[in-house]
Amino acid sequence: MQKNSPVILDLKFDRAQIATALKGAFAGREVIDLALPANRSRDLSGAGYAVVWRPSADLFARASNLEVVFSGGAGVDHVMTLPALPDVPVVRFVDPTLTNRMSEWVVMQCLLHLRQFKAYEAQNRKRLWHELAQPEAAEVTVGIMGTGVLGQDAARKLKVMGFDVIGWSRRKKQIEGVETFDAAGLDAFLARTDILVGLLPLTPDTTGIFNASLFKKLRRKGALGGPVFVNAGRGGSQVEADVLAALDGGILAGASLDVFETEPLPLQSPLWTHEKVFVTPHAAAASDVGALFSHVERQMDRIENGEPLEHVVDRAAGY
Amino acid sequence: MQKNSPVILDLKFDRAQIATALKGAFAGREVIDLALPANRSRDLSGAGYAVVWRPSADLFARASNLEVVFSGGAGVDHVMTLPALPDVPVVRFVDPTLTNRMSEWVVMQCLLHLRQFKAYEAQNRKRLWHELAQPEAAEVTVGIMGTGVLGQDAARKLKVMGFDVIGWSRRKKQIEGVETFDAAGLDAFLARTDILVGLLPLTPDTTGIFNASLFKKLRRKGALGGPVFVNAGRGGSQVEADVLAALDGGILAGASLDVFETEPLPLQSPLWTHEKVFVTPHAAAASDVGALFSHVERQMDRIENGEPLEHVVDRAAGY
Repeated sequence: MQKNSPVILDLKFDRAQIATALKGAFAGREVIDLALPANRSRDLSGAGYAVVWRPSADLFARASNLEVVFSGGAGVDHVMTLPALPDVPVVRFVDPTLTNRMSEWVVMQCLLHLRQFKAYEAQNRKRLWHELAQPEAAEVTVGIMGTGVLGQDAARKLKVMGFDVIGWSRRKKQIEGVETFDAAGLDAFLARTDILVGLLPLTPDTTGIFNASLFKKLRRKGALGGPVFVNAGRGGSQVEADVLAALDGGILAGASLDVFETEPLPLQSPLWTHEKVFVTPHAAAASDVGALFSHVERQMDRIENGEPLEHVVDRAAGY
Repeated sequence: MQKNSPVILDLKFDRAQIATALKGAFAGREVIDLALPANRSRDLSGAGYAVVWRPSADLFARASNLEVVFSGGAGVDHVMTLPALPDVPVVRFVDPTLTNRMSEWVVMQCLLHLRQFKAYEAQNRKRLWHELAQPEAAEVTVGIMGTGVLGQDAARKLKVMGFDVIGWSRRKKQIEGVETFDAAGLDAFLARTDILVGLLPLTPDTTGIFNASLFKKLRRKGALGGPVFVNAGRGGSQVEADVLAALDGGILAGASLDVFETEPLPLQSPLWTHEKVFVTPHAAAASDVGALFSHVERQMDRIENGEPLEHVVDRAAGY
């Protein structure tokens, strides 16, 4: 790769955050920010890199000589399905900032369910002083579906908090201190799981995977009095009608959702104020723009120095 | 100490939990449970041990030959202030069960404030999809007052979650990876603290220590937009009128309280439903009765085998 090739930014992010993050970033390299009016009809054929999040439909036609595409977020489904995506490496965003934020959110949600937060809030509204019987974290098994960088970090931190943790991924992974299952072991994994944490990429295989049939296979007689579903992966992996039916039918005891089939979550969705559900607006792990640019610079340095890129998406697997 | 000396139980706990925990506990030793009517006027002079939580006023007069008193909880203030407490070792309850539960609660409360839980709940009620600017845990300093077994465990787990953690105790302690302060360093400690976590024993020195004057010394310009007060030690350490005034006056941005000046929290307290406060009914770290009895047995074995007792209260310090 030619040294100091220009980089195109096509990021539908908050402009102020991009402006702040650009200060001091990409030193010695031309930055073509497509949000600037001056760049609207500019020739992009000289740029070797693009950093994208919901890019313009004509980006790849205009930028005809890209050698690497960087995703602006941890998920790459929005990139992999872009029409005219060139056959070049696509690099996902992996960064300690993003990983730490995701684990904050996952650990908080697991603790909210363990510590019966909603039940205590309901008691407080009635000004009722009553201590509930309380299982320990060690009595509760958190099953993580998706054991990439995010899943492994969450597993480690949940274990430190005392939870029993198991992991599932399509291809079996070794994680220290965590029993893992692969595609063939899904039913055994679910039968052990009290809190199911979804951190899966969105692929044809994972679309709608969190559905009525799966929820019924979760452990029914665990210490929480019923299984809980937590999803911070992609909304397309969950069937929300099934989540609601499972909650209302007592198949699920609770849920925490950061992602939804349609985002923003439609006004009429009962999930907004459901008494058994914690909702956040796809905010579990915001991409820190400064960290994104540092990650992109690191990878550009690697390729320009003849080293292999890291975090390249497996096109066949789709993640 | 004579082997297999009888043990008195005077525990105002849930009876069903005691009955369950007694199965298999104290094998080969007579147990005198004062909750049983048959023991109401029994001669207690032959018992060397008592395990107490809110004991009867006449316990120590009747049990005149006690050699060790065991507290039924982590806090011993309720024991140290008992009239006629004999001059024998008082042993506090230290157990991984209790420690883990307390850290679950402390970490959850810190995450609730970090991740702006109340702001998102308010948005959800309005069905408003809006991602808030979000500091990372690393940008927030949790200052723990009270660095005994509970404080040290909470510090370790908060650090794993990414928080910056500092500690304060009357006498300076060394804790790996945690900057610590002593009595003379209180103001410097407070000036660095964004989330103040109280895990102090109740003594004359700590009564009312969490007051208006202290709250004003907390860091005002931290990443959370204002300091937060979290207390799971003893309610007698906090001045609730000052907590409320600090919240309503913008000196404190939020609070999490598990303990109160008067328990149960009086019906008329505005804390029950305050929009900036998380309340639990002294439930942060319930004493597991089975774990309590195991701990007591361990200590009785030690003393009967000529080994020193562990976790003995320093009478001069009061904890």
